[in-house]
Amino acid sequence: MNTNRQWLLSKRPFGEVGIDNFEYTETPIPQPGENQVLVRNLLLSFDPTQRGWMEDRESYLPPVKLGEPMRAGSVGQVKLSNHPDFSEGDLVQTTGGWQDFVVASPDIGPMGLSKVPDGIQPEMMMSVLGVTGLTAYWGLLDLGDPQPGETVLVSGAAGATGSIAGQIAKIKGCRVVGIAGGAEKCSWLVEELGFDEAIDYKNEDVGRRIGETCPKRVDVYFDNVGGTILEAALNHLNLKSRVVLCGGISGYNATEPVPGPANLMNLVVMRARMEGFIVLDYMDRAGIAIQDLLGWIKEGKLQFQVDVQEGFENIPETLNRLFSGKNKGKQLLKIDDPS
Amino acid sequence: MNTNRQWLLSKRPFGEVGIDNFEYTETPIPQPGENQVLVRNLLLSFDPTQRGWMEDRESYLPPVKLGEPMRAGSVGQVKLSNHPDFSEGDLVQTTGGWQDFVVASPDIGPMGLSKVPDGIQPEMMMSVLGVTGLTAYWGLLDLGDPQPGETVLVSGAAGATGSIAGQIAKIKGCRVVGIAGGAEKCSWLVEELGFDEAIDYKNEDVGRRIGETCPKRVDVYFDNVGGTILEAALNHLNLKSRVVLCGGISGYNATEPVPGPANLMNLVVMRARMEGFIVLDYMDRAGIAIQDLLGWIKEGKLQFQVDVQEGFENIPETLNRLFSGKNKGKQLLKIDDPS
Repeated sequence: MNTNRQWLLSKRPFGEVGIDNFEYTETPIPQPGENQVLVRNLLLSFDPTQRGWMEDRESYLPPVKLGEPMRAGSVGQVKLSNHPDFSEGDLVQTTGGWQDFVVASPDIGPMGLSKVPDGIQPEMMMSVLGVTGLTAYWGLLDLGDPQPGETVLVSGAAGATGSIAGQIAKIKGCRVVGIAGGAEKCSWLVEELGFDEAIDYKNEDVGRRIGETCPKRVDVYFDNVGGTILEAALNHLNLKSRVVLCGGISGYNATEPVPGPANLMNLVVMRARMEGFIVLDYMDRAGIAIQDLLGWIKEGKLQFQVDVQEGFENIPETLNRLFSGKNKGKQLLKIDDPS
Repeated sequence: MNTNRQWLLSKRPFGEVGIDNFEYTETPIPQPGENQVLVRNLLLSFDPTQRGWMEDRESYLPPVKLGEPMRAGSVGQVKLSNHPDFSEGDLVQTTGGWQDFVVASPDIGPMGLSKVPDGIQPEMMMSVLGVTGLTAYWGLLDLGDPQPGETVLVSGAAGATGSIAGQIAKIKGCRVVGIAGGAEKCSWLVEELGFDEAIDYKNEDVGRRIGETCPKRVDVYFDNVGGTILEAALNHLNLKSRVVLCGGISGYNATEPVPGPANLMNLVVMRARMEGFIVLDYMDRAGIAIQDLLGWIKEGKLQFQVDVQEGFENIPETLNRLFSGKNKGKQLLKIDDPS
């Protein structure tokens, strides 16, 4: 390969993201400087938060600039190294973006650069041991603080983060109820992942079903979706409950402001807490989480699922699978296998 | 006096509360049982939360039943005592309700029964040292946790709770901005109470003015009003900021659900926390707060203002002064002076 294929952000989104928000181009392969490495991206991560990075507004990371490759987490392989800790052929995790090649170093970008540990599949590194798994781990355990016997409700429960959060809550001895779209996802949650109950938001009355499935009310609500499901959950909070705001995918494609829950005063009545977080704040403690998560996987207590699309040309449309709910588990796209 | 005048809750409210929600009646003076006392109410407390007690829905206290005297905090005087700790003539604080006489004991009702300490005026006991002062103290200090140099924004800042919360924040070394309705209240906040800035929500663009008056963003938002002002405040949160949900008076008279803030995702971006509380949970620690509050008053650092209406017949309409914003400081009504 002599060129660096790229998908650039060419137009800020309004509503749904489409192919016209991106422009395909080919550029020369960049050269790493001192203490930098050249990485070839092999596997790209797709995350709802990328929708926010496309917008020109203040957030926890600067917006992707127009004309730059779309930002994305990746696993890749080192092709050239000017850094003493990395060698050609190493599998690494970085913020590679929607392109074949990226210049990376431990000091560049939100994820820096780190080796994929020996024996860990890239797909595992990019899902349960990656950003989405760490999000589930720290959001649930640090902010949600679930106690044995408590009831934990998870929205977006069949997603990459929700499915892990719910299983960790089970490991911690909680009653766990998941909210997901469609009978297939719901039966996967209960029959494969061990959730106690699942609510199909596409076909059931979510508020009524939360009441039925959470008879002792909700102690921890791990919210990935926001909107009307958040409002329904707030009606069933227990005293001193914790609402973990992880994301609000239901509103990410909205073209005008989506009203928030009309029942925030329930937080007062129930002396409840709602708290947002960004997993990047926990990266210095990633090792703690990875050790626990890997242990639970080895003990057979924690399952993860990846949805791997293929083909560089399919990158833009793969992002939309998250918003249409087509993905079951972590959405990835494989550009190539390691050499 | 041979009868017990009462204002009974006769009709649940829909929208604004009016005289037709209450019914005047006269009943025999009740007799205290063992370990109970008969209290004659002298001073009634008016609080926005009473609006919620009138509705037939689950909350932190059971609804007032139709046909019962409206629930209200009061200071009164002991007329008959069957309790060893109370004597005839003692000034006491209890949940006397909208009536002349109540049978009280330390074990009855949300506030129980306690003596007004010697040297404390009833008006002080019912404001800065009462529920509203304690609400300001514990809400700001326990949930808001303001640090010197931080920016504290208070809505309902000219109210009984907001005015105390803002002054405590000043005592703690914060920059304090208050939001209130009208130029008179705003100049009172700045010129009399020492707030750094005040925003007149009736005549100014609240969102723009928060940005101007909180150039280092908002570290603690003490919210008494909810609604659009809460939404405006969420747009100016700082990293790791705390939103203390004390009340949401802007929605209490609403006849249909009022949408919540469309920007709750700012809690995620800013890793911010929003938490509700009920001051009744802090009553076992009331003494700590009262000692501090009284000390600050004596040092001239803390002012309080009471708005004392008079006349048993004016009780129902006095409640509405809270919702029309007529009160400046704590709304009270004096039934009579101590004998």
